[in-house]
Amino acid sequence: MLTYSNHFDTQTLEAEILEKGFAAVKREADSGEIGYYHLPLSSQPLVEELKTLYYDIDRRFNTIAIIGIGGSSLGIKAIERLLRPNTPNAKKLIYLENSDPISIMSEMKQIDKFRTLFVVISKSGGTVETLSIFKRLIVSFELPLENSDQIFVVSDEDSILSRFADEHKLRRFVIPANVGGRFSVLSAVGMVPLTLAGFDTASILSGAQTFLNQFWNRQEDHMLQKAAFYVTHSEAYPMNVLFAYSDTFEEFGKWVVQIWGESLGKRNAQGSRVGLTPISLIGSVDQHSFLQLIIEGPLNKTVTFMHIEHSEEHLMIPELSLKHLEKSDFVNGKSFNDLINAQCHATMQSVLQSGVSVDEIAWKQIDEASVGELILYYELLTSLSGALFEINTYDQPGVEIGKQILAGYFQKG
Amino acid sequence: MLTYSNHFDTQTLEAEILEKGFAAVKREADSGEIGYYHLPLSSQPLVEELKTLYYDIDRRFNTIAIIGIGGSSLGIKAIERLLRPNTPNAKKLIYLENSDPISIMSEMKQIDKFRTLFVVISKSGGTVETLSIFKRLIVSFELPLENSDQIFVVSDEDSILSRFADEHKLRRFVIPANVGGRFSVLSAVGMVPLTLAGFDTASILSGAQTFLNQFWNRQEDHMLQKAAFYVTHSEAYPMNVLFAYSDTFEEFGKWVVQIWGESLGKRNAQGSRVGLTPISLIGSVDQHSFLQLIIEGPLNKTVTFMHIEHSEEHLMIPELSLKHLEKSDFVNGKSFNDLINAQCHATMQSVLQSGVSVDEIAWKQIDEASVGELILYYELLTSLSGALFEINTYDQPGVEIGKQILAGYFQKG
Repeated sequence: MLTYSNHFDTQTLEAEILEKGFAAVKREADSGEIGYYHLPLSSQPLVEELKTLYYDIDRRFNTIAIIGIGGSSLGIKAIERLLRPNTPNAKKLIYLENSDPISIMSEMKQIDKFRTLFVVISKSGGTVETLSIFKRLIVSFELPLENSDQIFVVSDEDSILSRFADEHKLRRFVIPANVGGRFSVLSAVGMVPLTLAGFDTASILSGAQTFLNQFWNRQEDHMLQKAAFYVTHSEAYPMNVLFAYSDTFEEFGKWVVQIWGESLGKRNAQGSRVGLTPISLIGSVDQHSFLQLIIEGPLNKTVTFMHIEHSEEHLMIPELSLKHLEKSDFVNGKSFNDLINAQCHATMQSVLQSGVSVDEIAWKQIDEASVGELILYYELLTSLSGALFEINTYDQPGVEIGKQILAGYFQKG
Repeated sequence: MLTYSNHFDTQTLEAEILEKGFAAVKREADSGEIGYYHLPLSSQPLVEELKTLYYDIDRRFNTIAIIGIGGSSLGIKAIERLLRPNTPNAKKLIYLENSDPISIMSEMKQIDKFRTLFVVISKSGGTVETLSIFKRLIVSFELPLENSDQIFVVSDEDSILSRFADEHKLRRFVIPANVGGRFSVLSAVGMVPLTLAGFDTASILSGAQTFLNQFWNRQEDHMLQKAAFYVTHSEAYPMNVLFAYSDTFEEFGKWVVQIWGESLGKRNAQGSRVGLTPISLIGSVDQHSFLQLIIEGPLNKTVTFMHIEHSEEHLMIPELSLKHLEKSDFVNGKSFNDLINAQCHATMQSVLQSGVSVDEIAWKQIDEASVGELILYYELLTSLSGALFEINTYDQPGVEIGKQILAGYFQKG
C-alpha cells in the first residue's frame, strides 16, 4: 500500500470540479464504455488459465521474446524492472520494439530459437515495426508457422493479426475492444508474458483491485485534488515531473510519459490545444542534472517525489574514514537506502522552499500489490485529468498523419 | 560531418542578437575564463600519454569500473553507447553512479576484482554518492590503497580527492579548474576511461576541433540562429525536444538534458527565473508515446530531429507476405534503416505541418569525428543560449540547498 501526500495548495480547488472528475470516470466505468477499470477483475480468469500453461512453457522455454512497441511493451518492461529483484528466477524477457537495426540485431543475438517463446503483441494488429520485426524473426530463425506452439499472439478480437493467428492455428489472446493500448498492461498484453515468465501477476491484479475499490469508495480523494490542481493550473504549470528515487523506476517513468502525454495532449471540443507534458526523472542521479532547472528556472513545473522506505538490498556504507575525505563520513554506517531516502527528502524540501508545487508517493517496499496499485493510480489520474480537460482521453488522432506520409514515401519509391 | 537545417522562421531574428551570442562565447574562449573550448586541443597530449599506458592496462584488465555521477558519468556513457557498435572489442565499462542499493549490488556482482581497473571521478572531489560507493568497493573487494595501480583518480587539481590520491600515491588526472563538470567529457573525465577501454578518442577530439574551427570561422552560423530563436521564444516555447532516431542516442539524450537543463535554468542578473526545459525522445519508439502531445497539445515546444543515413547494421525486412498481414508489405525488401529514416522524415513533416518549430541534424553514419562534433555543437549551443539569457551558464547554485539539508539530517540523527 502506498501513501499519498499533496503538499500543494488545495484550498482554492472548488468541490464542484472535484466531483465533476469523479462523476466522469464513474460514468466511463459504469457504462462499460472504457474497459481498463474492469481489468483487475476480468483478467483474473486469464491469469488462472495462464498458470495451467505454465508447467509446459517452463519445461520448454527459458526466454520470452516480446515483439511489440508503445503500449505493447512499455508496461511489461515497467513491471519487469520493478519486480525483477523480488523475482530473480523469472524467465528472461527480450524486447523487440524499435525499427532500429542495431537494437534488433543485438536482441536477436540473444535468442536461442529452441528455448524461446515468441509473443507478438499489437492492439490494432497492423503496427509496422512489430510486423516487420516478426517477419525478420520468422525468416532468420526459420520459424514454422502452422500450428506452432512457439508463437503466441495478443491483439484485438477482429484485427488482421488475430486473423493471421487463426489462419495458422496459433494460440491467441484478446485485448478487449474498450481497452486502449496505453491502458492495456493489466489485460492479456501484460498478463501473458509476465505470468508465463513467472511473475506473480495475480497479486498485481489484486493490488490494483483493492486500490480501485478504495477509489470508488471515496477513500482516495487526494487524486481528485491532484487532477483538479494539474488541470486548472495547466497554463501556469504545463509540465509534471515524476522524480522517483530508485533506478528500478526508469521504465515505469517511460510508461507514465506515454499514458500522460498521449492521453492528455489533445484538441478539446472547442478545437483548442490543451495538455500537460510529463517528465520522468530518477533520483539521486538527476539531482546532478535537472534539479537546478526545477529550483531556479521558471516556475512552470509540478513535481511528484516517489521513494521506497525499505529496500530488498541492505547494502551499508562502511564505517571507513579515508584521509582527506572525512567530509563524507557523515553517512558512514548508514545504509545506501537510508542515503537515497534522505536525498529524496532533502531535495523535496529544497524544491518546496523554492516555491514549486509538490506531492509525494511513499512505498513501504516494492511488492506486486503496490505495483498494481501504482498502475491504477496513474491510469485513474489520467482519466480524471482528461475528463476535466473535456477531451477524449483515449484516442490519438495526431499520430495518424505521420503514418499516412510514411506509407506515401514507400508507395512512391 | 553532420548537416544542420533550421526549418523554423529565422527572418525575425535580428543580426544584433546573433552577433551578441557569438561575441560572448568568443570572449569566454579567448580570455581563458571558460576552459572547455580548449579541450579538443589540450586533451590531445593526454590521449597520447594514455596510449602509452594502454598495453599494460590491456594486459591486466578487461573491465573498467567508473565511479562517478552526473558530469562524471553521463558523457562517458553517451560516447560508449554511440561508438560501441563500431568498437565491439573495447573493454567492458561498468558504471557505479546512483546511491540506489539495488543498482550498486547488481553492478558489483559483475566485477572481477583482479581484472578491473577502478576510475574514481569527481570534479569537486566530495560527491557523497561517489565517495560512499568507493568506500563500499574498497571494503567489499579488499582493495589495497597504498601505491595501488588498480585505482585511478580524476578530479580538480586541489580537491580533497586529489589529496587522497597523492596520500596513497595513486595515479591521478586533472580536470582543468575552468572546465565545469557537465562540460568535462573531453577532459580527463572522458578521455581516461574511454581511451584505456580502447575507444578511438583521438578521432573524437579531432572531430570536435574541426567543428570548433568552423564555428570560429563563422561557417556554423545556423547555431547562432538556433540559440537566438530559442532564447527569444523561451516564453512561448519553454521546452526543447531532441527526437533522435536510434536507440544508441538514449544516453546522449541524458547528457543533453544535463548540459541544457543545469546550465540554462537560472536566475538572471535581475533575479528573474529564466530557462529552457530539455526533453529527450527516441524514434520510432516515442512516436507511440509522446508524439500525440507534440502534434495536438499546446504549441509550447521546439523539436530537433536527428537521424543517421547509413547504419553499421544492414538488416533487411524480408520479402515475405503473410496472409491477412499484407497491409505491412509496403516496406518489404527495404532495410530497417530505410524504415527508421522514413519514419523520421514522415514524423518531421507531420510535426512541421502542425505548426511546430523544427530543426534537423543529419548524420552520414556514426563515427568518432561526428560524435566529437555533436558534443561541441551542444556545448556551444548551451553557451550561446546562456549568453543571450545573460545568466551564468557554468554554475549550479540551486542544488546547494538540498546538500545542506541532507547533511543536517545525518548530523541530527
